[in-house]
Amino acid sequence: MPTPEELDRIHIVLVRARNPNNIGAAARAMHDFGLRHLRVVNDFPVPFESARSAVDASEVLADAVACATLAEAIADCTLVVGTTAVGERDLQHTLLPLPEAAPRIRAELRRGTGPNSNPGRVALLFGSEKTGLSNEELSHCNFLLTIPMQQYAGARHLSLNLGQAVAVCLYELVRGAAAVPPSESNPAAEAHAIAADSPVAAEPTSAADLERLTTLLAETLEKSGYMRRHPANCDPAQLRLLVRRMSLDTADAAVWMGVFRQLLFKLRRMN
Amino acid sequence: MPTPEELDRIHIVLVRARNPNNIGAAARAMHDFGLRHLRVVNDFPVPFESARSAVDASEVLADAVACATLAEAIADCTLVVGTTAVGERDLQHTLLPLPEAAPRIRAELRRGTGPNSNPGRVALLFGSEKTGLSNEELSHCNFLLTIPMQQYAGARHLSLNLGQAVAVCLYELVRGAAAVPPSESNPAAEAHAIAADSPVAAEPTSAADLERLTTLLAETLEKSGYMRRHPANCDPAQLRLLVRRMSLDTADAAVWMGVFRQLLFKLRRMN
Repeated sequence: MPTPEELDRIHIVLVRARNPNNIGAAARAMHDFGLRHLRVVNDFPVPFESARSAVDASEVLADAVACATLAEAIADCTLVVGTTAVGERDLQHTLLPLPEAAPRIRAELRRGTGPNSNPGRVALLFGSEKTGLSNEELSHCNFLLTIPMQQYAGARHLSLNLGQAVAVCLYELVRGAAAVPPSESNPAAEAHAIAADSPVAAEPTSAADLERLTTLLAETLEKSGYMRRHPANCDPAQLRLLVRRMSLDTADAAVWMGVFRQLLFKLRRMN
Repeated sequence: MPTPEELDRIHIVLVRARNPNNIGAAARAMHDFGLRHLRVVNDFPVPFESARSAVDASEVLADAVACATLAEAIADCTLVVGTTAVGERDLQHTLLPLPEAAPRIRAELRRGTGPNSNPGRVALLFGSEKTGLSNEELSHCNFLLTIPMQQYAGARHLSLNLGQAVAVCLYELVRGAAAVPPSESNPAAEAHAIAADSPVAAEPTSAADLERLTTLLAETLEKSGYMRRHPANCDPAQLRLLVRRMSLDTADAAVWMGVFRQLLFKLRRMN
């Protein structure tokens, strides 16, 4: 995951964005993912004040810089990356899916941060909602990236809205490599691990408590008539496994013991 | 990357979304990433026709299902995942960052697609723009996920807008995982496999069956007098979580339902 200093060397450049809501949503995503530098290239005054969907991203909007030309917006950057939805255009650039583009961007951000060196600065360009980046605009880019999608058959080509595209790109940039990829191999195991987990480290129940609970359950089943009706389910080993499979932590085990004690109390009074 | 069939078993559930633009943006992201099934839970008529930001996602919107309750919206799902921006709330669930949650969701989508088996269905829940998911709504979830963010120092807590959050989650789901590491021995997994005593992976219980079991348990606790003695343990959301934490497969869920039906039968005769 990039450091705050590295994130501070990314510039999001919106080229000819027309909808203030989209500018606001882009600023909001930047704010959330720790970026500050928004540059907006437009040949008309940019309606920052109406970028209302970004109420809370006001720092980003307050510092946003309006540029007359794309060249001006990217002048101090060492790597310029264009985003595209990949239409029919004959692309003259290297085009990378976002997951492959992100490591290159992160590498540039890490580059040359020693003394007497010029640290890498990255511009990430997003085109207008209607037309994307023009060929002229693309020509400023070192490479292009696209967000891989998987539309169902027959769907016509479509792209995310601008706010969504910015959010997805920034998510991937700060996503960082998961330190330990969780095993994908055993869904049942994972479901089990998830259920067993608890936000505070759950304390597994001692075998002795599980055995106590099993005994309480067996007596409850006997007194309630369940054991007579379903003897196959009530074999002691079956009941023991049934209780073990609840994967109880100590707190839940205590609750269940209380439940069965109360049930037994009630059933005994009855018989 | 999930297959189209697997993606077809994901249901995006928007709970109390108020802004038609956000519903539209969510539908647009679904369309782009190859999902079809949108369910919207609202206590007022959902303005699908004004979900105008999704002009091109009309198939998704046309097929969207309006549900009166969350329980109805997730009834056929085998894994229910809530999304949260993680406020100050004391969370009672496992909370995973999105990159770690996605492999678990993909594993559930791959599960049980052979003949005679019940394939995994996943519900991914998004709360209202203002308040997110309520504690009651969260209690329906097997686990929670959050989009990791990196705000710069001093920024106050903020979250993506709904359309952006849906786009980022779906991007991660279809992003395509790094190669799946071969299964390493996993003690929890093995314990579960042994306990389940079954060579095929255990089938998780549908949300509808878990809800039925929760209802049976609640009535049993009420009739037995436990609820009067321990009201704090019997809050509906607490009971729902207690049952979810049992991590039942379908066979064990059936056993427990039989147990509580018998207990109720007995307790009713007595009162």
